[in-house]
Amino acid sequence: MSTEPRVLIVLGSDSDLPVMAAACSTFDEFGVPYSLRILSAHRVPHELATVATAAKDDNYQVIIAAAGMAAHLPGVIAAHTTLPVIGVPLQSKVLDGQDALYSIVQMPPGVPVACVGINAAKNAALLALQILAASDSDLSDALIRYKQTMAETVLNKDKKVQAIGYRAYLQERG
Amino acid sequence: MSTEPRVLIVLGSDSDLPVMAAACSTFDEFGVPYSLRILSAHRVPHELATVATAAKDDNYQVIIAAAGMAAHLPGVIAAHTTLPVIGVPLQSKVLDGQDALYSIVQMPPGVPVACVGINAAKNAALLALQILAASDSDLSDALIRYKQTMAETVLNKDKKVQAIGYRAYLQERG
Amino acid sequence: MSTEPRVLIVLGSDSDLPVMAAACSTFDEFGVPYSLRILSAHRVPHELATVATAAKDDNYQVIIAAAGMAAHLPGVIAAHTTLPVIGVPLQSKVLDGQDALYSIVQMPPGVPVACVGINAAKNAALLALQILAASDSDLSDALIRYKQTMAETVLNKDKKVQAIGYRAYLQERG
Amino acid sequence: MSTEPRVLIVLGSDSDLPVMAAACSTFDEFGVPYSLRILSAHRVPHELATVATAAKDDNYQVIIAAAGMAAHLPGVIAAHTTLPVIGVPLQSKVLDGQDALYSIVQMPPGVPVACVGINAAKNAALLALQILAASDSDLSDALIRYKQTMAETVLNKDKKVQAIGYRAYLQERG
Amino acid sequence: MSTEPRVLIVLGSDSDLPVMAAACSTFDEFGVPYSLRILSAHRVPHELATVATAAKDDNYQVIIAAAGMAAHLPGVIAAHTTLPVIGVPLQSKVLDGQDALYSIVQMPPGVPVACVGINAAKNAALLALQILAASDSDLSDALIRYKQTMAETVLNKDKKVQAIGYRAYLQERG
Amino acid sequence: MSTEPRVLIVLGSDSDLPVMAAACSTFDEFGVPYSLRILSAHRVPHELATVATAAKDDNYQVIIAAAGMAAHLPGVIAAHTTLPVIGVPLQSKVLDGQDALYSIVQMPPGVPVACVGINAAKNAALLALQILAASDSDLSDALIRYKQTMAETVLNKDKKVQAIGYRAYLQERG
Amino acid sequence: MSTEPRVLIVLGSDSDLPVMAAACSTFDEFGVPYSLRILSAHRVPHELATVATAAKDDNYQVIIAAAGMAAHLPGVIAAHTTLPVIGVPLQSKVLDGQDALYSIVQMPPGVPVACVGINAAKNAALLALQILAASDSDLSDALIRYKQTMAETVLNKDKKVQAIGYRAYLQERG
Amino acid sequence: MSTEPRVLIVLGSDSDLPVMAAACSTFDEFGVPYSLRILSAHRVPHELATVATAAKDDNYQVIIAAAGMAAHLPGVIAAHTTLPVIGVPLQSKVLDGQDALYSIVQMPPGVPVACVGINAAKNAALLALQILAASDSDLSDALIRYKQTMAETVLNKDKKVQAIGYRAYLQERG
Repeated sequence: MSTEPRVLIVLGSDSDLPVMAAACSTFDEFGVPYSLRILSAHRVPHELATVATAAKDDNYQVIIAAAGMAAHLPGVIAAHTTLPVIGVPLQSKVLDGQDALYSIVQMPPGVPVACVGINAAKNAALLALQILAASDSDLSDALIRYKQTMAETVLNKDKKVQAIGYRAYLQERG
Repeated sequence: MSTEPRVLIVLGSDSDLPVMAAACSTFDEFGVPYSLRILSAHRVPHELATVATAAKDDNYQVIIAAAGMAAHLPGVIAAHTTLPVIGVPLQSKVLDGQDALYSIVQMPPGVPVACVGINAAKNAALLALQILAASDSDLSDALIRYKQTMAETVLNKDKKVQAIGYRAYLQERG
Repeated sequence: MSTEPRVLIVLGSDSDLPVMAAACSTFDEFGVPYSLRILSAHRVPHELATVATAAKDDNYQVIIAAAGMAAHLPGVIAAHTTLPVIGVPLQSKVLDGQDALYSIVQMPPGVPVACVGINAAKNAALLALQILAASDSDLSDALIRYKQTMAETVLNKDKKVQAIGYRAYLQERG
Repeated sequence: MSTEPRVLIVLGSDSDLPVMAAACSTFDEFGVPYSLRILSAHRVPHELATVATAAKDDNYQVIIAAAGMAAHLPGVIAAHTTLPVIGVPLQSKVLDGQDALYSIVQMPPGVPVACVGINAAKNAALLALQILAASDSDLSDALIRYKQTMAETVLNKDKKVQAIGYRAYLQERG
Repeated sequence: MSTEPRVLIVLGSDSDLPVMAAACSTFDEFGVPYSLRILSAHRVPHELATVATAAKDDNYQVIIAAAGMAAHLPGVIAAHTTLPVIGVPLQSKVLDGQDALYSIVQMPPGVPVACVGINAAKNAALLALQILAASDSDLSDALIRYKQTMAETVLNKDKKVQAIGYRAYLQERG
Repeated sequence: MSTEPRVLIVLGSDSDLPVMAAACSTFDEFGVPYSLRILSAHRVPHELATVATAAKDDNYQVIIAAAGMAAHLPGVIAAHTTLPVIGVPLQSKVLDGQDALYSIVQMPPGVPVACVGINAAKNAALLALQILAASDSDLSDALIRYKQTMAETVLNKDKKVQAIGYRAYLQERG
Repeated sequence: MSTEPRVLIVLGSDSDLPVMAAACSTFDEFGVPYSLRILSAHRVPHELATVATAAKDDNYQVIIAAAGMAAHLPGVIAAHTTLPVIGVPLQSKVLDGQDALYSIVQMPPGVPVACVGINAAKNAALLALQILAASDSDLSDALIRYKQTMAETVLNKDKKVQAIGYRAYLQERG
Repeated sequence: MSTEPRVLIVLGSDSDLPVMAAACSTFDEFGVPYSLRILSAHRVPHELATVATAAKDDNYQVIIAAAGMAAHLPGVIAAHTTLPVIGVPLQSKVLDGQDALYSIVQMPPGVPVACVGINAAKNAALLALQILAASDSDLSDALIRYKQTMAETVLNKDKKVQAIGYRAYLQERG
């Protein structure tokens, strides 16, 4: 694979990094290069507009934007590009991320954002990988293997709990 | 009073006009000139940024921004100006304006928006007038008279219902 | 462009068609062929699993799934494919689509769904087009023109309301 | 009683086990054999479909399915069987189980799920026992004794708090 | 089948009948006799307690209780019997049935209610039939046929929309 | 009974009268005199404070206050009196009365309001009558008769639906 | 004052006692005797019905009932008496008491409950005292003094923060 | 700048001080004098009315009012003045501040409150400063510098995370 970043990840604040690190590590796991930026829609609107507008010419194929509270970041980026934008609503100290969910998912007609679950950093990365995989058969194969491994993990747990019962299982789990 | 507009009203869509007309007519009633713009945060982000950034130099003193759904308009404007921005969350076909309320009121630290009630166009205008009145004693007096008239209207209704009883009152009200 | 369908649209019920027709007409407008299926996750689970599992080999590049209430359709499809799945939560007689929104957006780690707004059929189509555009420069250009037209429409409305004022504008709008 | 399992318990993840252990221990207490499986609707859809489809022929009489977030598990199982399916919405890190509640309870016409309260593992087991008791008079008697014991426990607490007062009662409770 | 009623349906008010008629007609369709009572938990608590307490000895095997607002009916019935109680939360003039949903589903440990969706009268009946079918192979077969018919209906719609397209389909649907 | 009003009803606006008329007519039915006032907490705060402060000396024994939206009326009255204050949250154009419910019921420690259901004008009156009945045995007897009549009405409906079946009952109800 | 209990406090569970102790201590503070019972609407329905039905003849003048989750207790008591019933919705492990609030406040027409805030044990007691005070001038005076003391406490805090500033005030508060 | 206070901050309780201290320190940072009062709308209504009514003559230009639960404080103050009133809804032990948000933002027509986010003490202060800045060019310049500094802080973080990567960034953040 090329080393040129294909995914642009934008955080509204560095306080979002502990949750969103799971997106970065997922890309690392799949060997897909990405850029990580911290650019608030409200604090550095000009820089954000510049970055979002240039994203397509900079050869990014998909953008992930994560924010909490009145989470305008994904929508504002979507206003400046025709690349697919994935929005991650983040839980904050009050309202459990419900405010960010509405702010991201309820976009007006004409400017879509692809919203994933609250704090769903890993799913945002996987969705981005699914989008990239359309033109990348290696990545497509990797996603199929990922799905198989995930299934095997569940089936192993299923076998184990049937074998040892819930009490022993819980004790091992600690 | 001067005829130069002192308030900038921005709507995210012309479908917001039927509700927001109450803001315009309130300014008309008080004789305060305003500009009315239709500028979506998601459809014309560059023009909106230009207008918001210039608002202070254009001698506006307060901005009202109204939007429904993922209502980013007030917050995006606030990102580009230090003028006070009043946000009006609008009811749309689903969720009763709760989505717009969260998108407007839950701004991150450093970039405030003054949120009024859902569909509260008139209150947005009155709040703007209260802000303008700080440096305009005529307007301040007008607001005091407005408050007195409002009180008298209530007191007249109170007298009437005491005089004729609820049944007759309801019949007259039709 | 090829006439082979590149997008698979699945509805949970034919009662979803009046809302979801806007997705179909958007694809028609862009000249992008699609398949439309009515396949409930709860009423025809085997057929749905078959269709979802085969979607990649059938050369679909993206799937749109729309459902109301306990809207399992997008998530169940996502369980059977590594193609990107766009979910559209639909408003039903109670709860305003909030139930469908949660059922679609809150997917567990490993199996993402790209959720758009409640009843946002057109945005689902546009998001699908953005995903397809990664490997289709004609479509990419068409999306850029679409965005420009959308902006021009807003700017024309903006000019008009400044020219004739809100009262005349409202009267014309009727 | 027979030792053949009469209840099938399915968890969407082994992280659900600490809460759902209360269902297992309730069946243990009543001496009713059950099977416990870990089978995600999204990660192992084929295996889940196989297990759910076979459940009736495997002589299960009732199924309990527990899941959090976009909790599709109970509904997907119900799609594959005519056995009664009891759904347990589980609290997750955000939204307090409201998402799982909607995803489980709001099933479309034709495919019911019997939803119990959020995290209500014990009640799911008791509801299953009530269903089994229709054709099992020993179990029916056991449920009546359970109800009586529950009542006696409350009445003893009632007597105690009347006897010693709330301050002493609180101190003993620690 | 016997003509002795096997299901007891209790409504909190006769204003609930238009919605709950769908439960009655479903039992009629399956040829399963039932009793229909109008007994409010708040207005005739003694009569309700008497009826609920006697239900088991009266050979009912399952109870359906429907109510709106602070919907105590299903829970109060469950307090008086060990029969399975199915609760149907009903939409009322405000809050869209959310109040009834919480009042029914959030039962305390020891006294379960099987909650179905808001206004889900038909699903309540189908769930009752699934419970009865445990000891009634004719009914079990009927439920399997019902599920097959439901699937065929969906598949026919699916074929039709593929054959004639969404525009013609919508026109026929009218 | 005396003709001196014993209950003070305060409405925040005359637009609340159509709903609150049910409280008035309930008092009429029981022959209990009341005063009806229209006094907004926000528009005539001084007059409201005066009326609330004087209510006890004016020999009112209980106050009913109804308001919608940010429904401060009951709480503000409670701030000025030690009489029991019953609050009625009213449904308005958005949010279904949820805003008024929170504004009324969530009073801080030390200043209680007795909140009834959304739009529950009749229940507010009945609660006031229950409070008055403590020192009025005629009224107490009237309330017992009211409860009995209510029960008989339900029992008659119950008999009727058992006699004629749900189809005929629905037809008669029209 | 008499030592015969005038207030009946009923808890749905002894786990409610830590919160509801504040009601007991408030009655102690005012020297008003009360009875405290632990009687679940779902676990001991017969005993609860007996106690509620007898409450009036036992010379109670007001009843306080507290419960969490599907909090039927206050409504079930209100079904058996014409005494005023005060309901206290309690916070439980999920949903923050919203379920209990709806279950208590949304009573159907004819059977009111006076709902106070979530966990508002002290306000429930104060509301009961306000009701008792109608026929007890000593208690009425005590409530007026309570209100005065409460006001003085606030005014002292107000003076202090003005005198020493917020930093010193916060340090003293620790 | 003058040392006469230009902003009046009112807290409903001294328990609100830990959150609202951020408003005070923001004014300190900008060198803008303010008064801080603790005056509950429900416990000292007369004193609050006096202070609010006099605020304009006392040369305050803007008022900040913070309260939790049924947060009537900002609305009650707005009833007594034509000065702009900024309301801060505070999170309390239940409901996450949603109750306070509705109680503050949903003001009736004629009496606006400028609501900021839940616990948004700093934004309340910044909004007040934006209002004061209309007639204070020094303050206006200070706000522009504040915005620039805020932007620089974000851009420095952005540069840093690009330079050292997310893992090192997270480690430094600790």
